[in-house]
Amino acid sequence: MSIEMLRKSNPLIHCMTNVVVTNFTANGLLAVGASPVMAYAKEEVADMAKVANALLLNIGTLSAESIDNMIIAGKAANKAGAPVVLDPVGAGATVFRTESCKRILKEVDVTIVRGNGGEIAALSDQAGTVKGVDGSIDSDPVELAKHAANVLNSAVVVTGEVDVVTDGTGTVCGYNGHPWLTKVVGTGCLSGAIVAAFASLKTDDFLEVIGYGLVAYGVAAEKAYEETKAKGYGSFQTAFLNQLGRLTDEDVKQHGRFERS
Amino acid sequence: MSIEMLRKSNPLIHCMTNVVVTNFTANGLLAVGASPVMAYAKEEVADMAKVANALLLNIGTLSAESIDNMIIAGKAANKAGAPVVLDPVGAGATVFRTESCKRILKEVDVTIVRGNGGEIAALSDQAGTVKGVDGSIDSDPVELAKHAANVLNSAVVVTGEVDVVTDGTGTVCGYNGHPWLTKVVGTGCLSGAIVAAFASLKTDDFLEVIGYGLVAYGVAAEKAYEETKAKGYGSFQTAFLNQLGRLTDEDVKQHGRFERS
Amino acid sequence: MSIEMLRKSNPLIHCMTNVVVTNFTANGLLAVGASPVMAYAKEEVADMAKVANALLLNIGTLSAESIDNMIIAGKAANKAGAPVVLDPVGAGATVFRTESCKRILKEVDVTIVRGNGGEIAALSDQAGTVKGVDGSIDSDPVELAKHAANVLNSAVVVTGEVDVVTDGTGTVCGYNGHPWLTKVVGTGCLSGAIVAAFASLKTDDFLEVIGYGLVAYGVAAEKAYEETKAKGYGSFQTAFLNQLGRLTDEDVKQHGRFERS
Repeated sequence: MSIEMLRKSNPLIHCMTNVVVTNFTANGLLAVGASPVMAYAKEEVADMAKVANALLLNIGTLSAESIDNMIIAGKAANKAGAPVVLDPVGAGATVFRTESCKRILKEVDVTIVRGNGGEIAALSDQAGTVKGVDGSIDSDPVELAKHAANVLNSAVVVTGEVDVVTDGTGTVCGYNGHPWLTKVVGTGCLSGAIVAAFASLKTDDFLEVIGYGLVAYGVAAEKAYEETKAKGYGSFQTAFLNQLGRLTDEDVKQHGRFERS
Repeated sequence: MSIEMLRKSNPLIHCMTNVVVTNFTANGLLAVGASPVMAYAKEEVADMAKVANALLLNIGTLSAESIDNMIIAGKAANKAGAPVVLDPVGAGATVFRTESCKRILKEVDVTIVRGNGGEIAALSDQAGTVKGVDGSIDSDPVELAKHAANVLNSAVVVTGEVDVVTDGTGTVCGYNGHPWLTKVVGTGCLSGAIVAAFASLKTDDFLEVIGYGLVAYGVAAEKAYEETKAKGYGSFQTAFLNQLGRLTDEDVKQHGRFERS
Repeated sequence: MSIEMLRKSNPLIHCMTNVVVTNFTANGLLAVGASPVMAYAKEEVADMAKVANALLLNIGTLSAESIDNMIIAGKAANKAGAPVVLDPVGAGATVFRTESCKRILKEVDVTIVRGNGGEIAALSDQAGTVKGVDGSIDSDPVELAKHAANVLNSAVVVTGEVDVVTDGTGTVCGYNGHPWLTKVVGTGCLSGAIVAAFASLKTDDFLEVIGYGLVAYGVAAEKAYEETKAKGYGSFQTAFLNQLGRLTDEDVKQHGRFERS
């Protein structure tokens, strides 16, 4: 599993995401070597989902209609055998968000749910508070993720200070990243899109490939921070896209900090 | 009143804004130390507005439905005692925009209306012309703002060469900023979001806190211009986010040009 | 025909475009000296279109409703004599996209259709494949464009390795640009907006003015690449906006590569 493999594969990622992060998500996917396509209308989402290599459902600026359309797309992706990633932005912040995620999870076979601790906690009936889009939690993210995977019957990625991916049994933790990621909107949402891109790769070891993607993402952030710490968040955002585009497997090998359990 | 106070307060700003500027607004709010949250659906806007510290209603890419939802959110913010900022983008350019603003102003207790001269003139039945989103006016912005505050029964911020905030009686003028702000889309809209963030601070002197926010914003723009004038508008946008994130009260003290009357 | 002429003219470009590229399109138009205005609602699109100097219809994130509203705007622009540019993003990728473009072309007098080879091929019943938003084709783009212009009864711009504009008889080819444009989302969509801006200029030689715009755009990309090739796609995007803002007719004279036939 590697960045090079992702670039060679050049997967088409069908993104149904929120209006805040659409552009950044597309540019981030292009940088890592995937091809983004955004399509939202009920008349076409099934057609797009069935030709895509993965589907991202991000509820950040949901409406009743967009959830309906996500379910149509999700079912088409299921039928086509493409992985579906759900990003439950703001789950727990409003009842509508929590219930909409539960509707999706009930009707679609979601491959991976990716959220911050608060969102994953809210979805899996564990304690947690969500403030805006940067929910933090008190509990151990590994335990949180494993419990959520079992409750939600899907793999779970919890991103934060530690990034965790689990299928409910095995776990990969990644320790890369930088706090400045929280000062650029959409870095969490983009990580969900990157997870979708890595999930599209054929592999026998699902946890490794997703863990690799999370760590690669964190390494790019660390390198971007080193370049721009004297400048600020605007330059960091630009450098982060640069680094996602230039990142090599050698970089990940050298700087990546994984732990498998 | 200060940038430091804003950063410590870390207010949650519920933004219902236009699709052109959503990302830039969120990043600008993060840079100054606020937490943006975007939520638009009728099923959740009241829930979000009542936990937020301020609400921004920006009609830049309005629809009949989005105005309905803004009114739901505005009423919830009113009930919760949170300030509501209306940004009447393009008021005067089409009847639909002018009338939609008037609907909001009738149904919601708007704390501050922030616009350029042309928009504020159009809303308060004063002469003025609006071209696209960069409306310029012939009249004195202080008189325009004061008259508008009385007609609209709300505080008014007019931004432009001079930035003015008034409650209809007292006035603070700010003289910072730079013409390159007009070459980056969303800088006016972001100033409305920044006004909302400063309005969320508890203070006995409303005009001072808003005036401080406007001047701080202008100082950041001046510093960004100095860094990037040989490069261009793209670099200016990046540097402006950098400066918003690095801005200190010492910067504002040193470079800010206020006038109270 | 020149960049200077465009800047003096400062045309108002009414953009109905997709949520992925809205911000970038607006900033690109500002950089070249046009004034963007985004308006989507059925209640106002006719009012906006009739005061604008050109109308851009980009179906990138279409819905049934947005197509209806584009048709209302298109008819108003036709009545006002303003040029209408259609950007058929993803035509061929789904039936809904292809059919929606055909609806627009049937109901609106479209001045120019701008797409990549795959999109233009799909619309004009020529062979071609579209993957995501970066459709590539096997056939000669000049022949493709000329045939499409005759089938669609409108001028056609095909952008790609070679940029072509044709009215079905005469042709201008432009040979500027850089592959990194395909690594920044929205550069194709922005070229459609730039085409709309140049189309708004009064001229006796339509092909020359559009060809000039395409080549100027490509020259800006080449200069941006030279500045940022060691950095990456994020910096390239920023530098491209810088270059669009700083571009002079002298630059185009020096670096532009045209061919008229």
